[in-house]
Amino acid sequence: MRIGVLTAGGDCPGLNAVIRSVVHRAVAGHGDEVIGFEDGFKGLLDGRHRKLDLDAVAGILARGGTILGSSRLERARLREACETSKDHARDYGIDVLIPIGGEGTLTAARMLSDAGLPIVGVPKTIDNDISATDRTFGFDTAVGVATEAMDRLKTTAESHQRVMVVEVMGRHAGWIALESGMAGGAHGICLPERPFEIDGLVKMVEERFSRGKKFAVICVAEGAHPAEGTMDYKKGEIDQYGHERFTGIGNRLAAELERRLGKEARPVILGHVQRGGTPTAYDRVLATRFGWHAVEAAHRGDFGMMTALRGTDIEMVPIAEAVTELKTVPVARMDEAESVF
Amino acid sequence: MRIGVLTAGGDCPGLNAVIRSVVHRAVAGHGDEVIGFEDGFKGLLDGRHRKLDLDAVAGILARGGTILGSSRLERARLREACETSKDHARDYGIDVLIPIGGEGTLTAARMLSDAGLPIVGVPKTIDNDISATDRTFGFDTAVGVATEAMDRLKTTAESHQRVMVVEVMGRHAGWIALESGMAGGAHGICLPERPFEIDGLVKMVEERFSRGKKFAVICVAEGAHPAEGTMDYKKGEIDQYGHERFTGIGNRLAAELERRLGKEARPVILGHVQRGGTPTAYDRVLATRFGWHAVEAAHRGDFGMMTALRGTDIEMVPIAEAVTELKTVPVARMDEAESVF
Amino acid sequence: MRIGVLTAGGDCPGLNAVIRSVVHRAVAGHGDEVIGFEDGFKGLLDGRHRKLDLDAVAGILARGGTILGSSRLERARLREACETSKDHARDYGIDVLIPIGGEGTLTAARMLSDAGLPIVGVPKTIDNDISATDRTFGFDTAVGVATEAMDRLKTTAESHQRVMVVEVMGRHAGWIALESGMAGGAHGICLPERPFEIDGLVKMVEERFSRGKKFAVICVAEGAHPAEGTMDYKKGEIDQYGHERFTGIGNRLAAELERRLGKEARPVILGHVQRGGTPTAYDRVLATRFGWHAVEAAHRGDFGMMTALRGTDIEMVPIAEAVTELKTVPVARMDEAESVF
Amino acid sequence: MRIGVLTAGGDCPGLNAVIRSVVHRAVAGHGDEVIGFEDGFKGLLDGRHRKLDLDAVAGILARGGTILGSSRLERARLREACETSKDHARDYGIDVLIPIGGEGTLTAARMLSDAGLPIVGVPKTIDNDISATDRTFGFDTAVGVATEAMDRLKTTAESHQRVMVVEVMGRHAGWIALESGMAGGAHGICLPERPFEIDGLVKMVEERFSRGKKFAVICVAEGAHPAEGTMDYKKGEIDQYGHERFTGIGNRLAAELERRLGKEARPVILGHVQRGGTPTAYDRVLATRFGWHAVEAAHRGDFGMMTALRGTDIEMVPIAEAVTELKTVPVARMDEAESVF
Repeated sequence: MRIGVLTAGGDCPGLNAVIRSVVHRAVAGHGDEVIGFEDGFKGLLDGRHRKLDLDAVAGILARGGTILGSSRLERARLREACETSKDHARDYGIDVLIPIGGEGTLTAARMLSDAGLPIVGVPKTIDNDISATDRTFGFDTAVGVATEAMDRLKTTAESHQRVMVVEVMGRHAGWIALESGMAGGAHGICLPERPFEIDGLVKMVEERFSRGKKFAVICVAEGAHPAEGTMDYKKGEIDQYGHERFTGIGNRLAAELERRLGKEARPVILGHVQRGGTPTAYDRVLATRFGWHAVEAAHRGDFGMMTALRGTDIEMVPIAEAVTELKTVPVARMDEAESVF
Repeated sequence: MRIGVLTAGGDCPGLNAVIRSVVHRAVAGHGDEVIGFEDGFKGLLDGRHRKLDLDAVAGILARGGTILGSSRLERARLREACETSKDHARDYGIDVLIPIGGEGTLTAARMLSDAGLPIVGVPKTIDNDISATDRTFGFDTAVGVATEAMDRLKTTAESHQRVMVVEVMGRHAGWIALESGMAGGAHGICLPERPFEIDGLVKMVEERFSRGKKFAVICVAEGAHPAEGTMDYKKGEIDQYGHERFTGIGNRLAAELERRLGKEARPVILGHVQRGGTPTAYDRVLATRFGWHAVEAAHRGDFGMMTALRGTDIEMVPIAEAVTELKTVPVARMDEAESVF
Repeated sequence: MRIGVLTAGGDCPGLNAVIRSVVHRAVAGHGDEVIGFEDGFKGLLDGRHRKLDLDAVAGILARGGTILGSSRLERARLREACETSKDHARDYGIDVLIPIGGEGTLTAARMLSDAGLPIVGVPKTIDNDISATDRTFGFDTAVGVATEAMDRLKTTAESHQRVMVVEVMGRHAGWIALESGMAGGAHGICLPERPFEIDGLVKMVEERFSRGKKFAVICVAEGAHPAEGTMDYKKGEIDQYGHERFTGIGNRLAAELERRLGKEARPVILGHVQRGGTPTAYDRVLATRFGWHAVEAAHRGDFGMMTALRGTDIEMVPIAEAVTELKTVPVARMDEAESVF
Repeated sequence: MRIGVLTAGGDCPGLNAVIRSVVHRAVAGHGDEVIGFEDGFKGLLDGRHRKLDLDAVAGILARGGTILGSSRLERARLREACETSKDHARDYGIDVLIPIGGEGTLTAARMLSDAGLPIVGVPKTIDNDISATDRTFGFDTAVGVATEAMDRLKTTAESHQRVMVVEVMGRHAGWIALESGMAGGAHGICLPERPFEIDGLVKMVEERFSRGKKFAVICVAEGAHPAEGTMDYKKGEIDQYGHERFTGIGNRLAAELERRLGKEARPVILGHVQRGGTPTAYDRVLATRFGWHAVEAAHRGDFGMMTALRGTDIEMVPIAEAVTELKTVPVARMDEAESVF
């Protein structure tokens, strides 16, 4: 069997572990041939590809990034790209294509599948917001990085009687904020799923100070926003110089808290460190299992499906199921987190 | 409500996170009182206990060990201890006892529950071998420590053309060896669940050397053992000086491989570093959720039950279910791991 | 002997290690009494202090922050504070005061010393910019945090063909940028000591891309600035809405590089994570030695002096020597760093 | 100029950083050609070498091990090897050889130098026991790994009222034990430089327990040994089965303490994890500077010299100076460490 593999979308720790696992299982386990396309669908469109044998994936398990490179596909070009991809995949004699990517990539994958190309998908996002799988690889690493940052910041906040606002990734779903906030012992967690009340945060901090705990750490997802009418904030507003007026909710929230509390509040925007670098053991295992099961699915002819973690098992689910709805943080999980503030 | 809490058995990262979560949820969420017994069941038997309020659990989320101390209960004293414990729990006005512990502790908990004491258990083991829960806290940290060690050892093995044998914890179940072996990219994994063939390992290493990959890392669970008749090894055998003749499978296996291969093989016994220190974010979140749900179960009167992770949910399951059978590594998981050697 | 100790200025990993070492050496070694003043000189002025015995410093060696709290002293109040401090120190029966702090604190310490108060200083700054000592504790930790961030960012930059601009601490001296840039393998390093040429950075990135290395990481100290007339940047400029127009050199430089290169450039502002959390082993050892030698100096009557690392030895140097001149990065060190871009 | 480079002796984090720095400085800075010999002097003797250009060293800065491989040279073959090496170096047109290695390698280097081969040495040892340099790269990483292990073990020791004996590397010099013991807050440190008194250790532990601190961590260098006549221990003694009777001082000491104290004592032998894996930022900077200065020395014709850290400077010192005497831990440093037990 001739298997094509590509990685698309934003960076995510564990991509190389999937590639390695696909190659190991396919080449060593089944005697397949594996072709890697460079820079995501771009490489498929432009015909940039290379053979991936065991040597090509030696030593990459623990390495961040992706040896294949990645790119984001513009939605507008999706349909056209789909046709070309299908043709090229056939030209290169690809029996099955394994795209590793997020919601956008899986949408493209589904179109390719509908168009008749044999596809087995592997879901990827540090945001953990893909339905149909309990977890995605990369998420655990992102949460780990954010948690370690909060561990560090807490000691400074405490020594200097300060409020720290830590902005973590998560535009549409607050999983990273939820879990790193819980793990880092944040005293407030703001998620995109539920507009936050600035008054409530102010009150919480004041109560802490009045109890002698003279510091607070607030974990805020980049996609979090204040409840209507409670605080001046409109992401993306441009001033007359062409600069963004508010450069992110973390900065804005820290400034607002400092103003209202009359105490030092400092923002820390973690940014890209959350999505790079060596994956945690958890993510390496999950990524490796996804790769293994994707190859097995390919050999069974389970096309139009993607790998998913369900409990402790890896199962195959229709790609369609994964991309219809974003997996957001349910209220029950927020309740658990709030109780430990 | 007056809640008693204790930690028993071997050390496990996340114990403090459970204690903190129980106190937060019970005291801040329900207005309960929480009493901590010291050194496990011993403290309950001897009447050593202290009140746990919010201040008592400040700053312990990320700390390894347990602020309550721990001890192992001898099986022989179990029934007697059970009676005394029940009496003492009543003397101290305990409405419900939350023991946090492994298989032994949960067995005791079950007996206490059968004897009429309201119990809500929280399972604990770095070995991940408790049935009825997908995972236990502490396991992720142990796997992380072992994986990082293998990451380090690999570079030395490669530079010095050497075989490294890494012994990890796991007497009866090989979960740590399985997952750290996969995450650390071990070329061989030996589990208690399946006697290993020394010939197979020798062959694997020789093949690697013949392919120009002049090193190998083998991950072996402390409870792994060679297939009958294939290698001289009997754990616990004492020589005439009163010393153990073979001081562990890691040392023994390295010596045997060195002898058979005629190449340098070095053992590394990771030991207790796997079960101490700050827990990973994953373990902190799981431990925190276990604590929260234990308190909720106590308030619902869900006695004789313990917390369990099922998929992404925390559910309550009968303690009995957890202790009847050890959760060992299934063959399917071994197959996944072997494919990536 | 009755020793007073206080920590002042910004947070710095290792403060607790100094406090612990002072207490261990003074109490256990000499039978002294140690008094800790809270929140820096403020505690000395307000009379907030507590006794520090061996139990008070148990378990703090590896903890970030300072158990004594800290604060910054306004320069304007310095002389007045000096008088009050001196009186209070005498009221409390302090035989010697050991202030642990940066340039501001040491200046105050010198004034106190000149005014007749027996002082033994311990220098502290993550910036490593205090003359008269080879290194200060906290610096190694800051460099380690920044280096790990660059390790992570590099993989993303490489996979996504991107330029990453990492802003690290260092307003007046570029030591953190220099050493983390070298350790993190940055392709460009911008220091406060030498205005950078934006054209040179653009050219370097373009050359890398033309050689097929399609990414670059640039490490910039927060106090770095472009050479006159080369790039629009004036830190602290406020727009009509009262917002800072450029929110830091990292953001500004990334925007400018993106504009000039026509390639994605992303800023990451590490901020306070660099100065919090558990110190590295190096910083713990240095801080511990500083504490030990400060107590010895106190017993010898070496007043007006501070601890300093010289080669592998801890020596006592006049505080005056340390505060007259900022230790900046010499040209020779920049040359070493540039050669490995 | 044509520069040969090789790495010899045991593994040491930072070797790749030196190689990279040599290549960067020589190739990019001076237009030199660099030849790497494989597996230490073996590669020089056997003629196994390869060209090292900028691409060959891309991405290796943070990687453990050595891309050139290493080997130990038998002392017996030294003189013969020396002659052959000299001839081969000339055959390959090597203008200067940069051997990176420990005491054995530097001794060989000195002989080669005396025989007329232009040599610039780079000292390497995780043990930090080479005279003439304040520090060697690799040492900081080793100390960091050992310290982190002690951080982890302490929590377990405390929760379980246990004595932990941690054996770290250091056969002839106790630097790793000294600094990791200080940084890890060990309550006892045993060095090769000073035979330890088992009675003293027993007394220290008992005093701790009597003060309510019911645990202790003891850090012991592998080369430490008991004072004459105080404890049964003779490293390397073989029993009648051909097994080593005592498998290391760590195991032996734990057993003896358990016997004498009547309390649980557990040994942890850290082993090879200390000398592999990614180097700390400190070691990367030092290694990079050594590489840079070695190339500069080569161009200046400073032969027979090696790089050395003196304070904050890199200086060139005669290789002879470095190998005449082992740098052991002075009494003053032991005193500092003991005061904080």
